[in-house]
Amino acid sequence: MPQTSNSNRRIVLAERPKGLPDENTLRLEETEIPQAGAGEMLLRTIYLSLDPYMRGRMNEAKSYAEPVKIGEVMTAQVVAKVVSSNLDGYEPGDYVLSGSGWQDYAIFSDGTEIINLGTEPQHPSWALGIMGMPGYTAYAGLLQIGEPKPGETVVVAAASGPVGATVGQIAKIKGCRVVGIAGGADKCTHVVNNLGFDACIDHKSGDFAGQLKAACPDGIDIYFENVGGKVLYAVLPLLNAYARMPVCGVVSWYNLSGLPEGMDFGPAIMGTILRMKVKVQGFIIFDSFPRSTYKDFVRDMSKWLAEGKIQYKEQVIEGLENAPAALNDLLVGNSFGKMVVKVA
Amino acid sequence: MPQTSNSNRRIVLAERPKGLPDENTLRLEETEIPQAGAGEMLLRTIYLSLDPYMRGRMNEAKSYAEPVKIGEVMTAQVVAKVVSSNLDGYEPGDYVLSGSGWQDYAIFSDGTEIINLGTEPQHPSWALGIMGMPGYTAYAGLLQIGEPKPGETVVVAAASGPVGATVGQIAKIKGCRVVGIAGGADKCTHVVNNLGFDACIDHKSGDFAGQLKAACPDGIDIYFENVGGKVLYAVLPLLNAYARMPVCGVVSWYNLSGLPEGMDFGPAIMGTILRMKVKVQGFIIFDSFPRSTYKDFVRDMSKWLAEGKIQYKEQVIEGLENAPAALNDLLVGNSFGKMVVKVA
Repeated sequence: MPQTSNSNRRIVLAERPKGLPDENTLRLEETEIPQAGAGEMLLRTIYLSLDPYMRGRMNEAKSYAEPVKIGEVMTAQVVAKVVSSNLDGYEPGDYVLSGSGWQDYAIFSDGTEIINLGTEPQHPSWALGIMGMPGYTAYAGLLQIGEPKPGETVVVAAASGPVGATVGQIAKIKGCRVVGIAGGADKCTHVVNNLGFDACIDHKSGDFAGQLKAACPDGIDIYFENVGGKVLYAVLPLLNAYARMPVCGVVSWYNLSGLPEGMDFGPAIMGTILRMKVKVQGFIIFDSFPRSTYKDFVRDMSKWLAEGKIQYKEQVIEGLENAPAALNDLLVGNSFGKMVVKVA
Repeated sequence: MPQTSNSNRRIVLAERPKGLPDENTLRLEETEIPQAGAGEMLLRTIYLSLDPYMRGRMNEAKSYAEPVKIGEVMTAQVVAKVVSSNLDGYEPGDYVLSGSGWQDYAIFSDGTEIINLGTEPQHPSWALGIMGMPGYTAYAGLLQIGEPKPGETVVVAAASGPVGATVGQIAKIKGCRVVGIAGGADKCTHVVNNLGFDACIDHKSGDFAGQLKAACPDGIDIYFENVGGKVLYAVLPLLNAYARMPVCGVVSWYNLSGLPEGMDFGPAIMGTILRMKVKVQGFIIFDSFPRSTYKDFVRDMSKWLAEGKIQYKEQVIEGLENAPAALNDLLVGNSFGKMVVKVA
C-alpha cells in the first residue's frame, strides 16, 4: 500500500509472534491524517529506525519497557519533519527526533522526549544511528562497563551492525586489538578494510570457535555481547582474568519461544564468571548512565566523525510498507549497516 | 590410620575424580616427621579447613589456581602450632595460619603467606572461618560487589554454611531483608532463629521456586551466588532492575564431568542480565579486592563478633583420616556450619 497524499498509514501489532514475526504479526492500516490542535504539532515521518529491541516489544512479557499492545502502532524512533505546529519551539520544516512509531504522521502535544534537529541537519538519519541510540549504546557500554585499556583484546559480535561497528572503532581509538564477528565474507571484508578492525571472523564459516581462538592469541579482555548463542559459547573459554562483558543484546535468542533443548551452558557461563573473575553487566541505554556520559558521547563522536576516525554505514529501505520484511532481515542477520526505512 | 607420635600422615591426590570424589581419589600415606633445617620451621597441624574450592583443585584444568598434582598433598589452609623454629618471628608454641595442606606436619622456609596468631588465640580455628577466608569472602563479596542498601532484599544460598551465614548476617546489619536457602528443616530453623534471617527456604522441600517467590514479595536486589543449579534458575525470574550478583561459587556444579543435558538456561541467564540490567561479577578472595578492604573486614568483623551481632557455627570432624569423607559431605550439602578437621 503506497502512501497517498491524504492518508496516514500505520503498522500495528496484529498478534504476538512465536519465533520470527510472520505475515500475521503486523498489519498495515490506513487512517485520516490527524490535525494538530491547540498545543499540538503534526509530524511527518521521514526516516524510521529498525532495531533488534523491537522484537522484544512484540512479546507479552514486560521486558525493560512495556510491550506494544495488540492493535497499537509498533514503537520506533523516527526522524520527522514538523508539518504544522501550535507548540512553542517547533516550526514547520524543523527536523525532529521523536518516538512516532511505524506510521506516516503523528501528533505530539509536548516536546518532552523530542529533540529538535533544526531545519537543515547535515545527515538527518544519523540521529537514529551513529549520533543516536546505537552510537550512544556502543560508546557508553564499551567505555563505562568495558573500560578498555590499551593493548587489550576486544571482541564484538554483529560487527558490521551499527552498535558493533562503533564499539570496534572506539576500541581501536582506545588502543585495543579488535576482533569482529560477522555473518558472511562481505561483512568481514568491510569490517577489516573499512572499519579498521584487526580481524573479523565469519560465524557462518567452518570451525568458528577455532578461528576465533586463533584470532585472539592473548585471550579476550572485553566481549561486547550483542548476540548470545554460539558466539557467546565460543567466547567463554577465551576470556581472561578480570574480563568485562557489557550485555547490550542477545539477538540470536530474541525469537525463542522457550528455552532450547540440548546441553545446559549455565554451568559454563557461571563457572567462567567465577574462575576468571568476569564482570557481566546488562545495560539499557538512557537508563543506565548519567547524563554527563551522553554529553561526552555527543562531544567525542562529533569530533571522531569530523576527523574521519569513525566510519558509518547505513542500509536504507524504501517505503514504510517494506519495514516488516526489513525487520525480519535484521533479526536473522541479513542486514548490513544501520537499517533505516525512508518513509518520505 | 590414627596418628602415632613419630609419623607424619599426609593425604595425597591419587587420581583425578570424575564427579564426586570416591575411595580412589585420595590416598593416606605415612612418612617420617621432617626436621626443620637452618632458616626453616616445623609446623604441627591442629585444625584443617575443608572448603568447596578443594573439588576444583582436583581437576586437571587450571581454574583460578594451579591444580593439585597427582601424588601431591591436597591443598588446605590450616591452623598449626610451631614445633621447632629456626626462623625469626616464630617461636615454638606459636599458633600460625598456613597452607600446610592435608597433613600432620609441614616445613616452611619463610614466613611469607603465614600469619602468626600468637601463643594464645581465643578461638584458633576461627582463623579458618569467620575471621579468615570464608568470613572475608562474605564481607568483601557482599559489600564491594553487592553494595547492599537498607530495605533491599538479599537472597543467599548455602545459608547455614560459613560464607552464606555471614553474608546474611552482614546484610541484616546493613538493614536489608534477608532470605536464606538451605537444605533441610534443621538448617532453616537455625538460619532464622539463630542467625536472624527474615526467612529461609528449604530447597529440598516441594515447590522450591514458588516458596522463594513468596518469600521475596518485592523481588531480589542481591543474590549472593554460592551454588548455581536450580537455586540460580529459581532466582533469575525474581531479580529486580539493577540487581547485583556476586559469584562466589557454584558448588552444585563442581562435580559435573560435562555440561548437563536438558534445557539450555543460557538464554535465561543472559536475557535476565540484559533486561534487568543485572551486574554479575565473579571474585576470588585475596585477588579481587584492595588490601584496605581486608583491614576493614578485620576491624568490622571483630567488632560485630564482640557485640554479638554475628553468630558463628562450626562443625568439627575428629581426625585427619576422616577428612575425605567429610569433604564429600560438604560437597553434597551434608555439612552444617563451617567444617574443620581437628588433626591434633
